Amino acid sequence: MLSLPLNNLRVVLVASRNPLNIGAAARAMSNFGVLHLRVVNPYSVAFREARSAVGAAELLAEAKEYSSLAAAVADCSLVVGTTALRDRELQHPLYRLESGAGLIRSTLQSGSVAIVFGSEKRGLSNDDLSHCHWLMRIPTREEHGSMNLGQAVAICLYELARETEAVPTPEKLLAAAGDLERITRLLLESLEASGYVNPGSEAAAEEKVRRLVRRLNFTAEDAELWLGMLRKILWKLRQQK
Amino acid sequence: MLSLPLNNLRVVLVASRNPLNIGAAARAMSNFGVLHLRVVNPYSVAFREARSAVGAAELLAEAKEYSSLAAAVADCSLVVGTTALRDRELQHPLYRLESGAGLIRSTLQSGSVAIVFGSEKRGLSNDDLSHCHWLMRIPTREEHGSMNLGQAVAICLYELARETEAVPTPEKLLAAAGDLERITRLLLESLEASGYVNPGSEAAAEEKVRRLVRRLNFTAEDAELWLGMLRKILWKLRQQK
Repeated sequence: MLSLPLNNLRVVLVASRNPLNIGAAARAMSNFGVLHLRVVNPYSVAFREARSAVGAAELLAEAKEYSSLAAAVADCSLVVGTTALRDRELQHPLYRLESGAGLIRSTLQSGSVAIVFGSEKRGLSNDDLSHCHWLMRIPTREEHGSMNLGQAVAICLYELARETEAVPTPEKLLAAAGDLERITRLLLESLEASGYVNPGSEAAAEEKVRRLVRRLNFTAEDAELWLGMLRKILWKLRQQK
Repeated sequence: MLSLPLNNLRVVLVASRNPLNIGAAARAMSNFGVLHLRVVNPYSVAFREARSAVGAAELLAEAKEYSSLAAAVADCSLVVGTTALRDRELQHPLYRLESGAGLIRSTLQSGSVAIVFGSEKRGLSNDDLSHCHWLMRIPTREEHGSMNLGQAVAICLYELARETEAVPTPEKLLAAAGDLERITRLLLESLEASGYVNPGSEAAAEEKVRRLVRRLNFTAEDAELWLGMLRKILWKLRQQK
């Protein structure tokens, strides 16, 4: 078995409220050797209090804090959201953890991956989801699908760390989330300049386009090409009066 | 895959101290449809307070209390202890969870199985261990082996409930080649209209764009969206003089 470069993995907690959950997530990360924790807009009291988690004090002290999910995942090639929902209501591909973990393992061989967990109460918002390439869910039963945050983190990391057969390696480096966001912006501005976006529906269009871009598998090299093409198209569109 | 008779599984918590951990164990059990909880000599305050665990109140109300591990596992065909220790010090066969779960699955087909978890502080005593057929450990790293009780229970149950032969299934219909070619044309014409393509290099550009479009994984639905967007952009570019 290839050893898994867990150093390329980031756990991202969005708007976590409960210090015990942040601490539990950190402890599970330490148990499985996943050391990079990023938190987006945590309740600051919760984040400070979490710093006492058993055996994970160092990991928590080195956790990075961000004010937006976009910033927290900007250097990641793959951004995976977690959800308790089943396929209904979702506009993203949804994998069970067993399958999703295989895809994450492949990507970890060549780039960094963020697994994103929403708040205890509400999970990830639609805006958060639009930053994700795809979603995965832990196979809980339908009657009681929603898991405790610390337990969900522990299970996802276990599934990644568990022994499996050799993993397929991807041949190409994937685009970083920052580039995908630049593609999103340029496409959106081109659509606005060409009258595709109706006035008043800019926010909905933004979410739609962001998701659309994440669903395609841009390699780093292709992302460069698309950025060049879109820049030129936008420049031309703006020359009009 | 045979469906797993989880109704034959019992989770046994010995001398648990923390109501939050008992509650977390119960919640994870409910998440995975494992409904029989047995507690041996819990701190009684902890056990009473645990009864408020999210979504698992009924399971906790039906939990059975025993004064000895022997009594708690008397009706089980297989008794599996959990430990954070590695092989040193142990007189029992020790399996990693991945392997142990396979043995448990087989036994569940014909009889009941108890998975036994010790107290947060000390784990299972030597006397407790002597009631176990064998032991298993979650594959945590050596530097920080000891897991939170609620997380350990969650991971063991997930490993039992997980699909053993997971194959990622594409849940969406892919775009037909005709649509990809239409996207290629529209993109190419937009690039020509915006001056991205140098005169004389049209044939090379066409090939490059065709390949670029095929490398992305357009679904049929997304292809429709891209066609609409590109048509609008091209129409606008052509309004120029």
